[in-house]
Amino acid sequence: MTIEQTILQMARDAKKAASVLGRCDTTRKNRTLLTMADLLEQQADVVFRENRKDLERAEAAGLSAAMVDRLRVDDKTIASMAGGLREVAGYDDPVGTMGPTRMRPNGLRVARMRIPLGVIGIIYESRPNVTIDAAGLCLKSGNAVILRGGSEAIASNQALARIIAQALESTGLPPQAAQVVPTEDRAAVNALLAQEEFVDLIIPRGGEGLIRFVVEHSKIPVLKHYKGVCHVFVDESADLEMAMDIAFNAKVQRPGVCNAMETLLIHRQVAGDFLPAMARRFAEAGVELRGCPDTCALLPEAKPAEEADWPAEYLNLTLAVKVVADMDAAMTHIDQYGSNHTEAIVTSHYGRAQRFQREVDASVVLVNASTRFNDGGQLGLGAEMGISTSKLHAFGPMGLEELTTKKFVVSGEGQIRE
Amino acid sequence: MTIEQTILQMARDAKKAASVLGRCDTTRKNRTLLTMADLLEQQADVVFRENRKDLERAEAAGLSAAMVDRLRVDDKTIASMAGGLREVAGYDDPVGTMGPTRMRPNGLRVARMRIPLGVIGIIYESRPNVTIDAAGLCLKSGNAVILRGGSEAIASNQALARIIAQALESTGLPPQAAQVVPTEDRAAVNALLAQEEFVDLIIPRGGEGLIRFVVEHSKIPVLKHYKGVCHVFVDESADLEMAMDIAFNAKVQRPGVCNAMETLLIHRQVAGDFLPAMARRFAEAGVELRGCPDTCALLPEAKPAEEADWPAEYLNLTLAVKVVADMDAAMTHIDQYGSNHTEAIVTSHYGRAQRFQREVDASVVLVNASTRFNDGGQLGLGAEMGISTSKLHAFGPMGLEELTTKKFVVSGEGQIRE
Repeated sequence: MTIEQTILQMARDAKKAASVLGRCDTTRKNRTLLTMADLLEQQADVVFRENRKDLERAEAAGLSAAMVDRLRVDDKTIASMAGGLREVAGYDDPVGTMGPTRMRPNGLRVARMRIPLGVIGIIYESRPNVTIDAAGLCLKSGNAVILRGGSEAIASNQALARIIAQALESTGLPPQAAQVVPTEDRAAVNALLAQEEFVDLIIPRGGEGLIRFVVEHSKIPVLKHYKGVCHVFVDESADLEMAMDIAFNAKVQRPGVCNAMETLLIHRQVAGDFLPAMARRFAEAGVELRGCPDTCALLPEAKPAEEADWPAEYLNLTLAVKVVADMDAAMTHIDQYGSNHTEAIVTSHYGRAQRFQREVDASVVLVNASTRFNDGGQLGLGAEMGISTSKLHAFGPMGLEELTTKKFVVSGEGQIRE
Repeated sequence: MTIEQTILQMARDAKKAASVLGRCDTTRKNRTLLTMADLLEQQADVVFRENRKDLERAEAAGLSAAMVDRLRVDDKTIASMAGGLREVAGYDDPVGTMGPTRMRPNGLRVARMRIPLGVIGIIYESRPNVTIDAAGLCLKSGNAVILRGGSEAIASNQALARIIAQALESTGLPPQAAQVVPTEDRAAVNALLAQEEFVDLIIPRGGEGLIRFVVEHSKIPVLKHYKGVCHVFVDESADLEMAMDIAFNAKVQRPGVCNAMETLLIHRQVAGDFLPAMARRFAEAGVELRGCPDTCALLPEAKPAEEADWPAEYLNLTLAVKVVADMDAAMTHIDQYGSNHTEAIVTSHYGRAQRFQREVDASVVLVNASTRFNDGGQLGLGAEMGISTSKLHAFGPMGLEELTTKKFVVSGEGQIRE
């Protein structure tokens, strides 16, 4: 079989499996997830053995230590994957839930019922744990899934795929409900993105290059974010101690992720009070500052920012800093350079807090809290499949509910249309 | 300017206008809609004069009488457009509404706020009333809109565009909030579909050919349905009088629309009682039947159905008829040939009604009611922008709410992430 034929067959099989899974009750789905967690722990040695092949190949190919590390599956990874599955088993199942019923003047009763999307394709890089995490969320929400991990993790992902299939079979579900693409060939990605007849949604997870490639080539709807250029704006009315804690947390707690702060905006009135103390704290943590002229006048240690700094997603301990005239100027800056991901204001002014929340165009807009809270778990959705900055369907972190849709169910007693 | 430059400029302007419109309060949006309705009535003669140019061109080009008729704007069209705008002005505004607030363990308060999508592109054929109807719904939901009507209606659409712009200016809103593409050149469609940076959603309305073209070429998310191959299944437990009324209504009341029935499925046990009487009623209305062998054995007047009849969307008084062994066979048939649009069962069996509603994969699933109820107005959404059979974002009729999305708004008192 050619790669195209293999993928077509997988997509067809997934579609069939999806209709079984869509009708499957919650108890059996949970049992499958719990079995999968148990099998993962029982067969950890098999996973380690296969993972070692990937690691050796990666080292031989001269991949960076950080990349090799992302690839590694150890006891902690197994525990985290198994724990994740057990957690998802405990979540409420959105499938079949119905909102309020509307009674129409002719007596028709109209309601909307949550149903799975169908078949979801996940395209991701490196970390093998995504294979288990994504499969768990898709299965719980009644969706079949086709998983396409990075070629460097193929042995690990195949080992995990066998465990997933065993778990599905143990509860009588079709193993085609969660399939891992069995080839490293990049043509498989293109083939998957062309299966619009069978695949309902594509979620790419990885660097901006991967995501742009997927959006460019997909005929299937894609949920994604390209990058997170997140701002914290310190208003003149801010509690400056609070602002310092929030800005520090947003930048330093985990700088390599999409909801970390990349640019700090400060109201001109408080820049003199705020920036020198803030800069000392940042300096202790090793943060390098790139400032606007006003910032550099206050902080001689800051490098002058260039135009390229304002839209930059550093993903490290670099921070752009800009003094602005007021909240309007901050919002204009965010509008121009932000990525619709996460934006925060620190203020004690009621009206400005309200206006910032209402008017800033981002998937999560925070008042007096760190940008790092843009996360499904932190916002109360449970585990997430990633964060969407597309506005269609899902805007923000995607939990189980975002992996479903709603159909109308209508109940009558013979109504016809006049 | 080239066409590409014109469209790029329109998209940029629309994006700017969208941010004004997104912050605009409901009162001003309503005032704009009401002014637009008044202007339409006051300037009806101008619209008629421009419409006459389109009609003359269409006749000269030898378009069919039906097509020329679709193009015509008369007193009734004006009244219907103005009435539609006044109705939309009366709807609740979804923008800014918030669902329940979730209190997180750390005291963060998390809610979701409805916001406009941004810029919507509508690509449609013939009927000039879509220009006004679509503009009204987009403006009310806070979205800027770029309208690309059929080239045969260009003079009419330009006249309507001037009225829309006057209404916007009269309330101080940017006229770029609703723009009509000023050229007949098809290249404008391709150029519009490439504006992913500025346009958030494309809604094509028209024949399957247009819609497939749009999906094929768009880099922007598209909400659409290709066709409506809708079924009514008459269960053995059905009240046969009710079933007859529903099947008749679903086929005959307006056969040319997407929620009309195209195939009737009958449980074997009641086919002998049901089909001859049903066929007589259909015959009186001029319905032509294409039957499976069992149907033809009961109804000598029915033509034998070919394989091409089962997936056919006739959009006229032709009907495919099939006798099935039971509800499972009916659901298998629907699964194979349906278009995820509208499916109905007539039954008095509780469990089968429930199962049909739960398991059939369509945007609207009805028990004991006509398929003709798949309509925003009939289901209580108000006027609709069309019906989606894509599952992402909207599944079924799209009202004002489907033209919005939700962002997370988070309120804290200095929370940081541990």
